Amino acid sequence: MPPDTDPRTTRSRKAITAATRRLLLEHGPAAVTHVRVAEASGVGRATVYRHWPRSDQLLAEAMAAVPMPFFDTPPDRGTPTVEWVRAELTSLARQLGLPDVRAVTTTLANAALWDMGMDARRSGFAHLLAQRLSSALHVAQERGEVTLSSTGDHAAALAIGPLYYRATIEHAPIDEHLIQAAIDALGTWHI
Amino acid sequence: MPPDTDPRTTRSRKAITAATRRLLLEHGPAAVTHVRVAEASGVGRATVYRHWPRSDQLLAEAMAAVPMPFFDTPPDRGTPTVEWVRAELTSLARQLGLPDVRAVTTTLANAALWDMGMDARRSGFAHLLAQRLSSALHVAQERGEVTLSSTGDHAAALAIGPLYYRATIEHAPIDEHLIQAAIDALGTWHI
Repeated sequence: MPPDTDPRTTRSRKAITAATRRLLLEHGPAAVTHVRVAEASGVGRATVYRHWPRSDQLLAEAMAAVPMPFFDTPPDRGTPTVEWVRAELTSLARQLGLPDVRAVTTTLANAALWDMGMDARRSGFAHLLAQRLSSALHVAQERGEVTLSSTGDHAAALAIGPLYYRATIEHAPIDEHLIQAAIDALGTWHI
Repeated sequence: MPPDTDPRTTRSRKAITAATRRLLLEHGPAAVTHVRVAEASGVGRATVYRHWPRSDQLLAEAMAAVPMPFFDTPPDRGTPTVEWVRAELTSLARQLGLPDVRAVTTTLANAALWDMGMDARRSGFAHLLAQRLSSALHVAQERGEVTLSSTGDHAAALAIGPLYYRATIEHAPIDEHLIQAAIDALGTWHI
């Protein structure tokens, strides 16, 4: 929607956004409805509908502000790629330990099955992670740092899958041994 | 609830159960409400409430009938354990390709964050899978079939995690190469 500089509008938008996030985190995606957002934010229901006409937009708003793990620190040419992978997986493990990141990732995986907007978000997230990991691994293989165990299309599933399963199905902490096993699953590391 | 042999009760229970499953599969967990179940089943709302007073019970009912991947064929002592693992992961991959299994597993991972009943169901599922895989792997290690890459507590995450991530985050088919890579992640196979 177009920017609106009216301070009252800014205030109500902020209150609504904060309420959507609180409802998602405390009660789950089914709680992110216009009625409950209006109640929780103290903003009139009509105003909530005006800004976000559909409930999937409210849910997207709740999810948007949560920082997702994106492997967004590029590998540094001076350090071994295996250390970059370890640092990124360790960061991802820490994020998957946070209730809001767990809420957003599992909501995304679930809602994507029925909501096209959520599915586009899931797809973008999955492709970005796969592409960043895969391209770093291929550079590492060219430099002789690693012999990959597969063509590289499987790298994200092999490295991130175990951490994601541990966090969202087993609900248990991700330790350094699991991270090491995930790194080893990618291939044989020579450096 | 106690068994009720009144044929009308049996009929309405069946209609309600079928409607909960249809709503979950076609519209997601947020659609499994008393109002929509009553509409979709043609049963009165009061009757729906009488059988399943809470909406999380309706959702549990929708999920209960979907066959989940449980590694429930025990390893056959006459065949190598690696072939049992491959068969079970192949079966799990096929199940994760079914829309109803994807709906139930992602709903479980999501709803478990807020609903104690769902969390108990998630925990039971995770423990059963981990225990069955881990005990088969330990027997295989004792028999010299494999040298495990970790203590075995990580086996379910290492083998199932990549398949689960591929199916629910990447929404892409699980091929034999990914299954082979997941098997290799468990350890070094000698047979």
